[in-house]
Amino acid sequence: MISENLVKQITFIKEIDKIKYIQRRTKLFNSDRRENDAEHSWHLAMIAIVLSEHSNDDIDLLKVIKMVLIHDIVEIDAGDTFIYDQTKNHENTTEEKKCAERIFGMLPEKQAEEYLQIWMEFEDGISNEAKFAKSMDRLEPLLQNASNNGGTWKEFGVKYETVYGKQKTIKKGSTTLWGYAKDLIEDSVDKGILEK
Amino acid sequence: MISENLVKQITFIKEIDKIKYIQRRTKLFNSDRRENDAEHSWHLAMIAIVLSEHSNDDIDLLKVIKMVLIHDIVEIDAGDTFIYDQTKNHENTTEEKKCAERIFGMLPEKQAEEYLQIWMEFEDGISNEAKFAKSMDRLEPLLQNASNNGGTWKEFGVKYETVYGKQKTIKKGSTTLWGYAKDLIEDSVDKGILEK
Repeated sequence: MISENLVKQITFIKEIDKIKYIQRRTKLFNSDRRENDAEHSWHLAMIAIVLSEHSNDDIDLLKVIKMVLIHDIVEIDAGDTFIYDQTKNHENTTEEKKCAERIFGMLPEKQAEEYLQIWMEFEDGISNEAKFAKSMDRLEPLLQNASNNGGTWKEFGVKYETVYGKQKTIKKGSTTLWGYAKDLIEDSVDKGILEK
Repeated sequence: MISENLVKQITFIKEIDKIKYIQRRTKLFNSDRRENDAEHSWHLAMIAIVLSEHSNDDIDLLKVIKMVLIHDIVEIDAGDTFIYDQTKNHENTTEEKKCAERIFGMLPEKQAEEYLQIWMEFEDGISNEAKFAKSMDRLEPLLQNASNNGGTWKEFGVKYETVYGKQKTIKKGSTTLWGYAKDLIEDSVDKGILEK
């Protein structure tokens, strides 16, 4: 006898498969191949685990991992928003909220509420876990662009000021990692792969 | 001043990007596109989170997630072994062990030891966490093949007995999920997408 809850959970598990088709702008390391949201989310979870000691504050690592694993699920309906898009704001949009409600709403009620809550907490970026999770979300494309001779910075004409502005979010999660990121940004300017 | 540990951690983070190129045999849900190891690992982590209540035993969910996120990293050197491969055993091979030591060995010593330990624990399949993690690793391709009109079962002529034999590993992690899996296997036979 299969419980109603399990049926709902399996339906959700199948639905979220779709993030494997959501392409990001950023490319894999030393590569021409764009990354998809599932690969990106896996990498963020790994980065969070490996770098957790550098968090400014005490964090519940399990919650951080949940955040980064689910943070892009809303893009199944809403699509990927490029971080340097000038016309579309990468904030918690009504469209994304509706999508979160639809997809997390496939789960049994208690889980649906928990995941919606975790997603909103990530988007708000206020809790210790959200600050650290957002640092991870900034760090990965920085490392990728630096490894790809400028990557999306060059491709979309994104300049130093904009990169610096977006990247300084890392500081809220980890001053250590912000130190590393700043060096990498300056180094990218010196190498001529990021325009000042 | 960037610490030596952070440099090692970043090197590891870049190295594991390579699992995004490791193709599995199994295809995405209702799809012709093969899944890669990063996508697979992301999905297993999500499935573990969503289905954790069905574990037979108390589990440390963070450890289960670490297991499924890292379990295929060894395939960067060793390549993917198809679960139904008749000629190559999908056990903890010397080749995989060497790879685990090389890749986890890029990390600071304490982390390297922790991840190697977690990977071996998963491979041994004895602890509660390993049993549940392995259930996830069986369940995902079962769901995929059932959604793909037989998928790799049909493609590689894999029959009921073999599928049943491999899938019953799920029981060790969760009798509830094994109940679901068994029904799905029988249902696949009835539908003519799995040969008895």
